[in-house]
Amino acid sequence: KHSLIPRNLPNDHISHYDLNRLASTPMAAYNKERILILTPMSRFYDEYWNNLLKLTYPKQLTELGFIVPRTADGDIALKKLEKAVKQVQSSKNKENRYTKITILRQDSDSLESQLEKDRHALSVQKLRRSNMALARNSLLFTTIGPYTSWVLWLDSDIVETPPTLVQDLVSHDKPIISSNCYQRYFDTEKKEMSIRPYDFNNWVESQEGLNIASNMAEDEIIVEGYSEIATYRPLMAHFYDPNGDINTEMALDGVGGSAVMVKADVHRDGAMFPSFPFYHLIETEGFAKMAKRLGYEVFGLPNYLVFHYNE
Amino acid sequence: KHSLIPRNLPNDHISHYDLNRLASTPMAAYNKERILILTPMSRFYDEYWNNLLKLTYPKQLTELGFIVPRTADGDIALKKLEKAVKQVQSSKNKENRYTKITILRQDSDSLESQLEKDRHALSVQKLRRSNMALARNSLLFTTIGPYTSWVLWLDSDIVETPPTLVQDLVSHDKPIISSNCYQRYFDTEKKEMSIRPYDFNNWVESQEGLNIASNMAEDEIIVEGYSEIATYRPLMAHFYDPNGDINTEMALDGVGGSAVMVKADVHRDGAMFPSFPFYHLIETEGFAKMAKRLGYEVFGLPNYLVFHYNE
Ligand SMILES: Nc1nc2c(ncn2[C@@H]2O[C@H](COP(=O)(O)OP(=O)(O)O)[C@@H](O)[C@H]2O)c(=O)[nH]1
Ligand SMILES: Nc1nc2c(ncn2[C@@H]2O[C@H](COP(=O)(O)OP(=O)(O)O)[C@@H](O)[C@H]2O)c(=O)[nH]1
Ligand SMILES: [Mn+2]
Ligand SMILES: [Mn+2]
Repeated sequence: KHSLIPRNLPNDHISHYDLNRLASTPMAAYNKERILILTPMSRFYDEYWNNLLKLTYPKQLTELGFIVPRTADGDIALKKLEKAVKQVQSSKNKENRYTKITILRQDSDSLESQLEKDRHALSVQKLRRSNMALARNSLLFTTIGPYTSWVLWLDSDIVETPPTLVQDLVSHDKPIISSNCYQRYFDTEKKEMSIRPYDFNNWVESQEGLNIASNMAEDEIIVEGYSEIATYRPLMAHFYDPNGDINTEMALDGVGGSAVMVKADVHRDGAMFPSFPFYHLIETEGFAKMAKRLGYEVFGLPNYLVFHYNE
Repeated sequence: KHSLIPRNLPNDHISHYDLNRLASTPMAAYNKERILILTPMSRFYDEYWNNLLKLTYPKQLTELGFIVPRTADGDIALKKLEKAVKQVQSSKNKENRYTKITILRQDSDSLESQLEKDRHALSVQKLRRSNMALARNSLLFTTIGPYTSWVLWLDSDIVETPPTLVQDLVSHDKPIISSNCYQRYFDTEKKEMSIRPYDFNNWVESQEGLNIASNMAEDEIIVEGYSEIATYRPLMAHFYDPNGDINTEMALDGVGGSAVMVKADVHRDGAMFPSFPFYHLIETEGFAKMAKRLGYEVFGLPNYLVFHYNE
């Protein structure tokens, strides 16, 4: 039932795919399902790369796609990425090579300053996130193939995940499922390392959120995580329970892009990252809304942590 | 300036593309720009295929993509298509082969009866066009590559176009440009062959259209060309002037899918075919609206005719 898709193998430049035989199942690796890991990358972190290499999903079933901005930071990231890619793709052991790697250089504008305080100012969010949406769409449209079963969106500053990230996320068999993105930091009071929530884009819609949206001008947007817009939306970041079951699921209405797994059919049906206000949402938050309009459910794993770089 | 994109050629499964060097210009053939012709196909017509083969844009720069529905009609179309594809791709002369052909078999539902009177009933339009949107998106997302400069949407029942269709449409250098779809028929009064308008989805928005939309429930849609919904939108079909300049352009707000050329960047930015009501529009009409939300302008060529099959 879940056999792989090509009806005929490519022959004389003809490819033939039966989308009905293309499954996205909890048994992904066993069924040899192809996964595409997509990363918009303004900076290259060794920690990200090393974590990626440690993922245990078979590399022969894994494609990577990157889009690098046309900025000074992007130039540096591109050089480091190219070096790292060449090294892994020239591994003697074929099992250590990815099946395909695509690197795109962005053609649209990017924010010049990537410092956290600058990129997080509410005033720049609309432009910044709208550009990010364009970058994600370019990457998605040009890399997803007829044989792709799953798309994992993984930000370039996610530096620590369980090595079984792919298998763990697909095992939930959901159209979209997001992990909970935290950050390690040094707690100066307790004088020890600790963790704190980082990504506030995984949320459940609230009545206040809906009220704010219904009173907004057509082109205004809500970006979650800013006290200037008090939506009182339940944020998945706050649902983390260190003693809870790591497999606990919760339904979401908005997602972030840190580490989120998407069945390829959701994208193929048309779910993309709106760069314009879509129900007053853009980028990954707008993507979740669009997937819902396409009839898909969106979930998060509050107790399943991945960690963001600490600048 | 308009050199082709790959910075490095594929090497060890690494592909490297600079989207800034990827142009979509009026000099497409000279600049060796890659074009992707996409056709959703519920029926295979020899006339469509022969017309396609006669297009003079270089086949080595042309990729084809088809999506065939999972219906009895689709089974027949698929068989005929496969036969035709094998024949052209095994041409001795390499110049007669397309650079790549992808055939997808649809996984979503399709209307069983494809008779014109059935598929044109207003009551089935929402479901039918929504399924068509999903088919178009699956085809688009899985075939557009990082090297694609132009996407030509060409319906499978377009049986006659100028052989210079591709060059003619790209020469206008527009983000989206639609030809005018007519039909040949036998005029029983005049006892001679004549032509009449066929595709009414190329239109300019009207105040009445906007008023109707603003009074609609969120999930209602307007489909153009039905007297039940009188939008009084100026329809490009009615602007045809047999003595006019074939290059006359007009700005449009809605487009059909008969024969419409799109700069690949428009799709890459995220413009797709909404299967859900988007500003009360779906499928190709919703696509035009989405492109406009992304900042692109949409045009039509009222005097540039292509012809639809007459059942
Ligand atoms: N291609 C591209 N990627 C970007 C750009 N800005 C940020 N990124 C990447 O997009 C992801 C999210 O951006 P980031 O700045 O980390 O967002 P934050 O963590 O929410 O502040 C990360 O993987 C960045 O490397 C850009 O302008 N272009
Ligand atoms: N893949 C797919 N293609 C379809 C389906 N229905 C129609 N088509 C194709 O979509 C295009 C437009 O459909 P058609 O029925 O001709 O629309 P009309 O000319 O506006 O009545 C044509 O190329 C059809 O062959 C379907 O269910 N699935
Ligand atoms: Mn980040
Ligand atoms: Mn037709």
